[in-house]
Amino acid sequence: MTTDFRTSTAEGKVNFVNVYDLEKAASLVIPTGAFGYISSGAGDMWTLEQNTKSFNHKVIAPGVLRNIENPDQSTTILGQKISTPIIMAPVAAHALANVQGEAATCKGVAESDTIYTVSSYAGQTYEEMRAASGDAPQWFQFYMSKNDDDNIKILDLAVKNGAKAIVLTADATVGGNREIDLRNGFTFPIAMPIVASYQSGVGQTMDAVYKSSRQNLSYKDIEFIQKHTNLPVFVKGVQTAEDAEAVIEAGADGVWVSNHGGRQLDGGRASFDSLQEVAEAVNKRVPIVFDSGIRRAQHVFKALASGADVVAIGRPVIYGLALGGSEGVKEVFDYFKNELKMVMQLAGTHNIEEIKNTKLRKNEYM
Amino acid sequence: MTTDFRTSTAEGKVNFVNVYDLEKAASLVIPTGAFGYISSGAGDMWTLEQNTKSFNHKVIAPGVLRNIENPDQSTTILGQKISTPIIMAPVAAHALANVQGEAATCKGVAESDTIYTVSSYAGQTYEEMRAASGDAPQWFQFYMSKNDDDNIKILDLAVKNGAKAIVLTADATVGGNREIDLRNGFTFPIAMPIVASYQSGVGQTMDAVYKSSRQNLSYKDIEFIQKHTNLPVFVKGVQTAEDAEAVIEAGADGVWVSNHGGRQLDGGRASFDSLQEVAEAVNKRVPIVFDSGIRRAQHVFKALASGADVVAIGRPVIYGLALGGSEGVKEVFDYFKNELKMVMQLAGTHNIEEIKNTKLRKNEYM
Amino acid sequence: MTTDFRTSTAEGKVNFVNVYDLEKAASLVIPTGAFGYISSGAGDMWTLEQNTKSFNHKVIAPGVLRNIENPDQSTTILGQKISTPIIMAPVAAHALANVQGEAATCKGVAESDTIYTVSSYAGQTYEEMRAASGDAPQWFQFYMSKNDDDNIKILDLAVKNGAKAIVLTADATVGGNREIDLRNGFTFPIAMPIVASYQSGVGQTMDAVYKSSRQNLSYKDIEFIQKHTNLPVFVKGVQTAEDAEAVIEAGADGVWVSNHGGRQLDGGRASFDSLQEVAEAVNKRVPIVFDSGIRRAQHVFKALASGADVVAIGRPVIYGLALGGSEGVKEVFDYFKNELKMVMQLAGTHNIEEIKNTKLRKNEYM
Amino acid sequence: MTTDFRTSTAEGKVNFVNVYDLEKAASLVIPTGAFGYISSGAGDMWTLEQNTKSFNHKVIAPGVLRNIENPDQSTTILGQKISTPIIMAPVAAHALANVQGEAATCKGVAESDTIYTVSSYAGQTYEEMRAASGDAPQWFQFYMSKNDDDNIKILDLAVKNGAKAIVLTADATVGGNREIDLRNGFTFPIAMPIVASYQSGVGQTMDAVYKSSRQNLSYKDIEFIQKHTNLPVFVKGVQTAEDAEAVIEAGADGVWVSNHGGRQLDGGRASFDSLQEVAEAVNKRVPIVFDSGIRRAQHVFKALASGADVVAIGRPVIYGLALGGSEGVKEVFDYFKNELKMVMQLAGTHNIEEIKNTKLRKNEYM
Repeated sequence: MTTDFRTSTAEGKVNFVNVYDLEKAASLVIPTGAFGYISSGAGDMWTLEQNTKSFNHKVIAPGVLRNIENPDQSTTILGQKISTPIIMAPVAAHALANVQGEAATCKGVAESDTIYTVSSYAGQTYEEMRAASGDAPQWFQFYMSKNDDDNIKILDLAVKNGAKAIVLTADATVGGNREIDLRNGFTFPIAMPIVASYQSGVGQTMDAVYKSSRQNLSYKDIEFIQKHTNLPVFVKGVQTAEDAEAVIEAGADGVWVSNHGGRQLDGGRASFDSLQEVAEAVNKRVPIVFDSGIRRAQHVFKALASGADVVAIGRPVIYGLALGGSEGVKEVFDYFKNELKMVMQLAGTHNIEEIKNTKLRKNEYM
Repeated sequence: MTTDFRTSTAEGKVNFVNVYDLEKAASLVIPTGAFGYISSGAGDMWTLEQNTKSFNHKVIAPGVLRNIENPDQSTTILGQKISTPIIMAPVAAHALANVQGEAATCKGVAESDTIYTVSSYAGQTYEEMRAASGDAPQWFQFYMSKNDDDNIKILDLAVKNGAKAIVLTADATVGGNREIDLRNGFTFPIAMPIVASYQSGVGQTMDAVYKSSRQNLSYKDIEFIQKHTNLPVFVKGVQTAEDAEAVIEAGADGVWVSNHGGRQLDGGRASFDSLQEVAEAVNKRVPIVFDSGIRRAQHVFKALASGADVVAIGRPVIYGLALGGSEGVKEVFDYFKNELKMVMQLAGTHNIEEIKNTKLRKNEYM
Repeated sequence: MTTDFRTSTAEGKVNFVNVYDLEKAASLVIPTGAFGYISSGAGDMWTLEQNTKSFNHKVIAPGVLRNIENPDQSTTILGQKISTPIIMAPVAAHALANVQGEAATCKGVAESDTIYTVSSYAGQTYEEMRAASGDAPQWFQFYMSKNDDDNIKILDLAVKNGAKAIVLTADATVGGNREIDLRNGFTFPIAMPIVASYQSGVGQTMDAVYKSSRQNLSYKDIEFIQKHTNLPVFVKGVQTAEDAEAVIEAGADGVWVSNHGGRQLDGGRASFDSLQEVAEAVNKRVPIVFDSGIRRAQHVFKALASGADVVAIGRPVIYGLALGGSEGVKEVFDYFKNELKMVMQLAGTHNIEEIKNTKLRKNEYM
Repeated sequence: MTTDFRTSTAEGKVNFVNVYDLEKAASLVIPTGAFGYISSGAGDMWTLEQNTKSFNHKVIAPGVLRNIENPDQSTTILGQKISTPIIMAPVAAHALANVQGEAATCKGVAESDTIYTVSSYAGQTYEEMRAASGDAPQWFQFYMSKNDDDNIKILDLAVKNGAKAIVLTADATVGGNREIDLRNGFTFPIAMPIVASYQSGVGQTMDAVYKSSRQNLSYKDIEFIQKHTNLPVFVKGVQTAEDAEAVIEAGADGVWVSNHGGRQLDGGRASFDSLQEVAEAVNKRVPIVFDSGIRRAQHVFKALASGADVVAIGRPVIYGLALGGSEGVKEVFDYFKNELKMVMQLAGTHNIEEIKNTKLRKNEYM
């Protein structure tokens, strides 16, 4: 289903010290255009950069002598128990990073005992991903068609393949100004079978791809999805108290705080800086997923302590995929789990609930 | 009308990714002294640098699911409908950047369906600029003579050529300490026909030019201009609530927030940092134009959301002029319009009014 | 007791201008792996870096004309008079830096007339260190065994060797993610005689070392130590008001504010930024020791003025040890004493009590 | 009176764009050790750097249309009219920078129609300086002897030579840790005739010099000086409201806010950051002189607008002296005067009184 695009075929153990190393190594095995697409952000990439830097806007003030030996990082979301509060974010076209594509990621995530979010813009069929995940939980990220008949068919496909939730991406109704893609002349080399009814994919810029999808998304789309799936709906891209209030009012079953990894609106607020405001507005009425900028377990800890129920990671997993296929994917989750275990031990927290009740300190000095 | 000064003769499509690229490319076709004059600022250029950096003092907190497909960026100022809230700032001597001079800029701006502000220190005659603008709207930026007879004649010329407003520049009664000009030994190579009655132009330093104009500007000059033109008067260079109050009290029809692109008083506040204070004082009594530091549509968005009705851009247009003549000028406006459309879509705003009602978030971390 | 590990054998005068010079020079005589272990911190080393930078979050506002000629920096802690409010922090395995190991450090510290804190992970026997200290005061830093019989024996050893206080390290129940050690493949080349009953040391990573010690430390351990030693117990690693309250409630005789030199939890607060909060909670009920990041006497001054009773230094002393053995150690204390005398004179403080009553100013600008 | 030390012999016009250029040029004509002594500061030189950077903690918010053409920067201090609010700070041993020494500086300052402050550590006799100043006003900066008979004789000398005020330096009762001097092995090559009764000068480190002077300065010294001179006394080195209150209470006739150009206590507050607090405490009871960090007229403006009555500059003048003798000195004052005139014009202030009444804006973003 790919063109003459060639990328990594790796499978096996990677060995890396941290995600920054992993990114550097991945840049050597993923072709320039594809790596640019995966790694870069919008405009001046200020928001992209702030996404990770902003975690230092709050600092952990550890607790000691709390009688902790083996902290428990398992948690539950929408009734689903998972081994860690870290799930796989929706990412388009994994075959940009590894010829094995989404199937390898699904396998690695399933072995990590957490949730895989299927992207509408995946390069493999839903059935391939479902098969690769075994009976591990999957959610479905939805880019709607302008045509509701298409949408019903796509949602049926998700239901048939056992999606446990639908994630409506609301922050990408047009492509961000990703200047690296412009400089590289990057177009998609990989078709998108799930949305093939309204989207060709191959040879298109990301901007064209986004514009082929429904742009005038509205609150009504939440109800539409619920009606046709009977599944809980997350709205992804919520960054303000007002929006949190509005989407809950409109019936959303979950709020996903994200700025799309800094890929959409440069000059927008760092995702972590938005989290607390959103969490206070949500006030535990629905679960909160958080993404954008996580590169370390301390970031996971800080997001949970700022109101997230689980977090999603994308780019780090794709780098693991590029370098080690399914095993690389699992290794990335293992890395985060090990580091999180250490952070929990050092911060003085026995379990996820205690992380959520931790009071971070504001750091005014940057 | 020029001396033996030689500069770009370009006309045609430019192709650029962003304004920073454009500036770099322009630096290669504009002679060093002229480029230094155009691009640089006063003193340590701290205020110049802050002008653009300060836009990150506030961040956009986007809204989602707002049912937006094709946001409308047209707006109206002083009853004039324009295609975008971005107008052309007054800039001296366009022939420093392109031998075609102001006429090419006028043409490009007119084709962009927005307002061109004629500079008193233009290198072409008013009639040439009027002709090049066709029936597109023009405003006239006024550096007064020490002699009121001159002033009346200049204002008559503006009225005769259809100026829709007079912009009284109040922040340049002496030249800023532009050290790059000193280092380059830069003097003006281009005469100034509009103000020829009191100003020779050719061979002078910018400081000498400013000092030849009226230095002891006062509130009474607002009324003087109104009396002799029956046109609305903007005071350009307002940066405080006190001044906004004072010039409105003195009869000004509009307030133009600017620090002259960081070219006058280094150590002064970034223009964007002044905007909100001024807007609160103005409280919608008169329209507000904003300039200084805009390099991206997100900056335009943030200025409008902080109280500006329209913004003006200068240097980016001059760089487009240098590289592509009238077509380059239009391309710069197209660039800003396209980016603004994207920003509006992603921020969740249907039109300019909604931008104005957007609540930016303060970013305390720099 | 060492493997084939080779390091500095220096003894004698060092001569250095400041601690940064000293660190650079030490990096040339200590083998790479050992220097990495000594000098580095956890994760991105952000907290490590903030530890020293954070002293600029408060600035000294000096007093003049206070009739000062020869300020007195002697002080008393737990009834022990010492020549300076600067003591030796517990540091593992001094023989990484100098073959003379802890004995040389003990000698230099004793000659400096201040307190030496014996590390559980010392590379020499308690008796060797006791002998080298002469009758100068020692404290004992305790990493507990999982087995209480071991603990009782180790505490007996400390009592027998005249420890004046026990320092229970509470912030290292697992190793921080010290990536430099991973990159260097660093393992301990030096055995740990004091904890030999539960810990082998040689050939282990630091993480393995920490995990061999008791991980599930709890408030009860304070009482356990008191009961078996009749000595005052400091809890080391307190960083919040809550923890200060809790350990005092649990019977602690002193609070040691530290983030373990930035070696444990990256993304945690700079130690100096935690001090004031802790000091306010302690409210003089028990003495406070402070460490992490001190490289200058002005840092000592600021820590005392923010609530510490004494401060501890570690790495600077180890660098002095590497370069000059016991004489180098004494030279480091002399350096700090001389600089502190100067700072006291210039700040307008006659003695330690006046430093403690000095009101630093907050510096909001970093 | 000098040893075999050789330095610049320049006299004549310098030509420079700004003070940073001047410093660079001066570094080429002043021997390394002497240049290090003149230009450097204490410790990490953080406070030195902050001294100039801190001026950006407040920004000028200009006023327009204020009918200004030729702003008047003359002012009066202690009844003395001067051409500009910028005076010469006390600086030791001008012959480090130019063989002509203080006499040339005196001449240049006198021609600039402002005040020269004679340093106790001058390398020429009081009479030489008095002669070179003609009838231009001089103040005398006093480093007291440990012996009051010496002090009376020195004060008599100042009175006899027409000093209009005595400046008691209170912030240098010991030398700061000037590490550049240590690295350069710098000792004074120039004798100090004014204080020859208690100080040899030649061959001594600065630290030795300071320690030869009286260290235990106290409030009583103010009265002592007043009694023996009948002259107004400034206390130099005041940085807090408490000290301002205390020295006024003790009878001081003026307060000199300074941190000795960042040469004494590193980690102390930037001098400009201290000014407002002091000015509010003084509340116009006595005049305020400000120094430390001024390199531009905008800094002068900001200091006056923050409570200073006049400011003093040191290093820039010494650089002018090095490069152009008395003419270079005058050129530096001309540079500041010209720039200040421009700043006053652009800020919208007719005179010094209006500068003092200007409301700067706080800049929270650094």
